[in-house]
Amino acid sequence: MTDAKCTVTIAGLGTFLPGKPVENKQLAEIFNINKDWIEVFIGSKRRYFAVDLVTQETTHTLAEICAHAAKEAIQNSGYSIQDIEFIVMATGTPDFLMPATVNLVAEKLGINLVPTYQLQSGCSGAVQCLDVAQQFLLSGSYKVGLVIGGDICSRFADFNRDFNNMPSGELVNYVLFGDGAGAAVLTSEENKTGFTIEYVLNQLTGLDKEPGQILNWFAVPPAGDTKLPQAVKEDYKAIEKAVPVLAKEILESLMDAVEWELHDIDFILPPQLSGNMSKRIVEFMDIPVEKAVHCVTETGNVANALPFIQLQNLESIMHQGQRAFCITVESSKWIKGGLALSRV
Amino acid sequence: MTDAKCTVTIAGLGTFLPGKPVENKQLAEIFNINKDWIEVFIGSKRRYFAVDLVTQETTHTLAEICAHAAKEAIQNSGYSIQDIEFIVMATGTPDFLMPATVNLVAEKLGINLVPTYQLQSGCSGAVQCLDVAQQFLLSGSYKVGLVIGGDICSRFADFNRDFNNMPSGELVNYVLFGDGAGAAVLTSEENKTGFTIEYVLNQLTGLDKEPGQILNWFAVPPAGDTKLPQAVKEDYKAIEKAVPVLAKEILESLMDAVEWELHDIDFILPPQLSGNMSKRIVEFMDIPVEKAVHCVTETGNVANALPFIQLQNLESIMHQGQRAFCITVESSKWIKGGLALSRV
Repeated sequence: MTDAKCTVTIAGLGTFLPGKPVENKQLAEIFNINKDWIEVFIGSKRRYFAVDLVTQETTHTLAEICAHAAKEAIQNSGYSIQDIEFIVMATGTPDFLMPATVNLVAEKLGINLVPTYQLQSGCSGAVQCLDVAQQFLLSGSYKVGLVIGGDICSRFADFNRDFNNMPSGELVNYVLFGDGAGAAVLTSEENKTGFTIEYVLNQLTGLDKEPGQILNWFAVPPAGDTKLPQAVKEDYKAIEKAVPVLAKEILESLMDAVEWELHDIDFILPPQLSGNMSKRIVEFMDIPVEKAVHCVTETGNVANALPFIQLQNLESIMHQGQRAFCITVESSKWIKGGLALSRV
Repeated sequence: MTDAKCTVTIAGLGTFLPGKPVENKQLAEIFNINKDWIEVFIGSKRRYFAVDLVTQETTHTLAEICAHAAKEAIQNSGYSIQDIEFIVMATGTPDFLMPATVNLVAEKLGINLVPTYQLQSGCSGAVQCLDVAQQFLLSGSYKVGLVIGGDICSRFADFNRDFNNMPSGELVNYVLFGDGAGAAVLTSEENKTGFTIEYVLNQLTGLDKEPGQILNWFAVPPAGDTKLPQAVKEDYKAIEKAVPVLAKEILESLMDAVEWELHDIDFILPPQLSGNMSKRIVEFMDIPVEKAVHCVTETGNVANALPFIQLQNLESIMHQGQRAFCITVESSKWIKGGLALSRV
């Protein structure tokens, strides 16, 4: 899409998962539901929460977990806090509406006097903030930027419900998601090691389609009425059906854009809905299973953080000159996200 | 900050205010408060609400009012819906967390297959989304983009409270804010009439400062507990004190950046907190009162929409070759926003 001369490199990655891993056995006990159902239906082994499941107290804010990930990314990039010229953060679950959480993260990092942006986004947020940062670097206005993606999905988990009589479509929200953060430092400076961003796909494709997911928020405390609707509404069946199809379309768009054939691509980071869905998506896309880099089985669905965790997993196995695609699908109003990367 | 050759032009503007104007007299009757207090303390004459104050029913969503403003901006720009290559929207009060409201606006406009971004932002959101759009155009990736700023502040107004015993610092929230939307079409194509963006200032300045405003949101419906805290928390005194100082700093930064002296600047669009505060800010900045372009007295504080309304007012009085500054201050975690514009 751009004919700019400069290239943008992901020079450092960082991730953070709060607290101790919560295994399926423990989750099943807390919700008094069947452990095997979680494993068969979802296929994820563990996830992390920013809330203590026993006391129901918040242990971490989104700003805290994002600051941890960002510090690690900056350290791994070889840059320092002082080099960061702008921050772009993506989340669907901010600590507050105002101040934007990105500014609370900046406070924790000691970053000031730079522009900061917070994108309201879901599972394609990581690609969206990398997209924005790339444009900022391509414009020539900046040399080094920080991007962050994170979510505290447990905010939507109401632990005082009757889980035994809950339909699967609702119960899935309690076992599918986890909390986490990821970050990356991007630069347009030459001769940096990391991942070169060869192409970004970021495209709304929602016209005339029903939203697959709605996250509501409540501004006004209820006066006497406790019957607020549940904040999360998800058409899990529609999502299960649409994501593999969209993932394949994204794969093809990326191949067209960078003119790489499937055999030129060494790794593919598929969309991360659940452990089971990742497998099904890979099968539907017809890509060799050994090329797929997952993380959701070990982290739960951490939305905006997922691609950063996949990229960190990729970093340890990908060699110089190799190529990878990262594919994300946002099911709220259907967004296609994709990255074509090469290792430098 | 950039040495790119191309310039970015605001080629068309649009605004929308929902329903009929609510005058101070009517507001005073509904809340059973003193009309004179509103006029003396706030200094705004009227505002518009996306809720019917009598029935308390929502009459407009944020997506609806933003779509109205966007349609007008596109029409005024001479471009068509099909020319829009990306959308950047700024709001502090989205309809949902997910889908992002920008995607619901795209649906209403019939826009699809383009990247969309929604910034979580307050009173500097208009500058922030113009900033992002400018970078996208400067990068050479795009030629025409749509930016939108809008807020439904009345979401935070709980009409079932005891207004007679409410301290001024809380009551202010009910009379200060209004609902509204604004939009602009930006282009990097040459020979367009409108406003050339000569410089954008967008800078977090919140390190070690307490937030002036917090907007909370509630994810989990309460089980039996109706005592949720009030969603809006504002240190109005701190805001009143800080905004004029920051406005003057922004004025000076803009003058430094574009090397214009005060006498070179024909119009200044000051921050818009309330009718009274606008006057005080102009006095503190020591700028001639006839250079100031306000709108808040006629619209109430419509946050992300305000600068678009000011720009539309400016459009009718500014001649080719004249210069203007637009100054915004976000008081949540303190952001300086500014635009240097010339009429082409």
